[in-house]
Amino acid sequence: MEIQTGPIEYINQELYFDGVKVESLKEHFKTPFYLYSESELVKCYQDFAQGIKDVGLNGMICFALKSNANPTLIQKLASLGSGADIVSGGELKRALECKISPQKIVFSGVGKTQDEIDYGIQMGIYSFNIESIDELELISQRADHFNKKVDVAFRLNPRVKAQTHKHISTGFKTHKFGLLKEDIIELSKSESLKKHVSLKGLSVHIGSQLTNLEASLEAFTKLSDTANAIGGLEFLDVGGGLGVNYDINNPVAPTISQYMECVKKGLSSAKVDKVVFEPGRRIVASCGVFVTSVLRKKFSEDCHFVIVDGGMNDFVRPSLYEAYHEIYESKQTNDKVETDIVGPICETADCFGEKRMLSQLNAGDLLLISHTGAYGYSMASHYNLRAKPKELIVTDKEVQLISKEHSFEI
Amino acid sequence: MEIQTGPIEYINQELYFDGVKVESLKEHFKTPFYLYSESELVKCYQDFAQGIKDVGLNGMICFALKSNANPTLIQKLASLGSGADIVSGGELKRALECKISPQKIVFSGVGKTQDEIDYGIQMGIYSFNIESIDELELISQRADHFNKKVDVAFRLNPRVKAQTHKHISTGFKTHKFGLLKEDIIELSKSESLKKHVSLKGLSVHIGSQLTNLEASLEAFTKLSDTANAIGGLEFLDVGGGLGVNYDINNPVAPTISQYMECVKKGLSSAKVDKVVFEPGRRIVASCGVFVTSVLRKKFSEDCHFVIVDGGMNDFVRPSLYEAYHEIYESKQTNDKVETDIVGPICETADCFGEKRMLSQLNAGDLLLISHTGAYGYSMASHYNLRAKPKELIVTDKEVQLISKEHSFEI
Repeated sequence: MEIQTGPIEYINQELYFDGVKVESLKEHFKTPFYLYSESELVKCYQDFAQGIKDVGLNGMICFALKSNANPTLIQKLASLGSGADIVSGGELKRALECKISPQKIVFSGVGKTQDEIDYGIQMGIYSFNIESIDELELISQRADHFNKKVDVAFRLNPRVKAQTHKHISTGFKTHKFGLLKEDIIELSKSESLKKHVSLKGLSVHIGSQLTNLEASLEAFTKLSDTANAIGGLEFLDVGGGLGVNYDINNPVAPTISQYMECVKKGLSSAKVDKVVFEPGRRIVASCGVFVTSVLRKKFSEDCHFVIVDGGMNDFVRPSLYEAYHEIYESKQTNDKVETDIVGPICETADCFGEKRMLSQLNAGDLLLISHTGAYGYSMASHYNLRAKPKELIVTDKEVQLISKEHSFEI
Repeated sequence: MEIQTGPIEYINQELYFDGVKVESLKEHFKTPFYLYSESELVKCYQDFAQGIKDVGLNGMICFALKSNANPTLIQKLASLGSGADIVSGGELKRALECKISPQKIVFSGVGKTQDEIDYGIQMGIYSFNIESIDELELISQRADHFNKKVDVAFRLNPRVKAQTHKHISTGFKTHKFGLLKEDIIELSKSESLKKHVSLKGLSVHIGSQLTNLEASLEAFTKLSDTANAIGGLEFLDVGGGLGVNYDINNPVAPTISQYMECVKKGLSSAKVDKVVFEPGRRIVASCGVFVTSVLRKKFSEDCHFVIVDGGMNDFVRPSLYEAYHEIYESKQTNDKVETDIVGPICETADCFGEKRMLSQLNAGDLLLISHTGAYGYSMASHYNLRAKPKELIVTDKEVQLISKEHSFEI
């Protein structure tokens, strides 16, 4: 099979990632590691930015750092003009260190602490996306304390159910996120709050890995309606969540242009200057792969296992969300067998793929798990006292290490 | 409700953990943190050890470090005589640093790397619990390389289905763990392997958080039968997996004595000197709690949320396994409301408990999540660029910090 999907391709049955022969990495780098493509990152960002331009919107892209906060990648995105969607003080610190302008930073999340709020106020970020009345009151108090007027947006809970994994669907009324329309309208009229905060916008985010635009359109329309009921807002933040095609045989993700048309349609009645976008996965998923070595194989009755050196501590999406990711072998043959790819962790959930058609593999062979640039390294842990995986980047066919954790090395 | 469960109790409606008033911790320690009880740890270990004696078995306890590898706790267990069940080079290093004798260390896991095998051979551990033919061959080669004879056990896959969460059920034939009986018997006859390895025992482990002893009895009986078919073994390793009572209104875990009777019955026909036990959760779950502060509350139609400063990055069991853990408020009142306890992470899965009856809580109030000593800190991550939680221990009513991660502090 001659496939080409993003930076992944086979040339004469040998696997290449962004022009680098994967097998050649063995000599220089110990597996497991994440491998990123700078050119794919740039392409994904530019495609997104172009999509905004194509529908004539005045957009600001705030990359969702929770999907991947590697400093090298964030610096690159910053150089392309990206802002940041952050959810913690750690992420704010990282965004600023990577030269993202505070005026391009929006702070989301239901659980901002007072320390984090103070940090955001002092740095002068673009907007706090407020998720509850109590949070608004605290921000107002802290603004008063610092004698500043703070720009905020309310996150609307649009009461829509996104069709995605239940863990990452966030727009329904029983979810912890956002404020209901009636509460937002009530709050927007509060004179006492206007002393310390300026309501500049509204935001919405109904979930992650969305593949169906109907719920998004409904959410954007409700966002528009709520904005019109208030009037005089500067921006609307349409959140993130645009899905990617994890399964190449079942491409389900909307195109950038379909998505932008949906945003435009949903916001058509809104009278605001700016639209904020919070993409994470769509910018960074396809730019990263997880590379792991075969340790050994094993047969148990009808099951054929390949045991690899990467585990669920390195990459948890298959365990946590039952996520499907394509798995590629570094050298193809025509003789394929049904294979379960499992890690070294003592849990049955530590499995990257079941019944995949792969060649007969031997110890030392490399496997590449695709679309792991988003929610890969950012969710890694030290479970089983394992070191976190390294991170590498390909820039003009040169590979370099861009992370340096060495704890637990023996 | 006057409850007393392990180190947790209410005195005059105020919550105490191992004799320390939880509310008093606010002054000295920033939430979220794990809090351990040394006395409960000692009690759990000694109860387990006594249970072994009571049924007249010659047992060796190898504490499963994957459940909690905090050095202070491991040192304490080592001082009580505990060995270690390890699954990585990092865990071997930790066990040795904490003064556990190599001759009390068993190395489990399907994915031991060559580096890890070499480390274990050089340190002279008690046994490698071997999970595949390829692993046996590699250990044999490395033993040859070091010119040593290495002690090993085979892990039996007993073809039984444990009644627990599918992620942590590990004894069925389609799971990646262990070797089938017929393969073990075949391997035990191999002359070529006997040059470099000594087959000293067999092991079995059918899953974690087991509450029904029927599957365990079946597994132990099969372990015995396989040992008898081989003959001349020194030990049988019955693994871990004994459940604990997470839900105080639905106590499902066997008592230590019921479990030991089951082990004794299952192994009654076996002729071995020693029984190895690999408890993790049963020793350490009840000795730890996770303490988190209320950041704010929030109402969304019929839902009443309490947003706390601990998240799924700190404690992932509810998200990953849909695990139930009791949640206690630091000050009780008689006026309770149905409450969802959620963290700051931007995922709906970031929820510690739904519809719990708790008092009306305010910002700054503390909540205690019980039985989090096992698979709590050990699975924590930096997701959302959050610092990992601190770890504290109570010893004779004195509280001290026993972990020191300060990254991502702002």
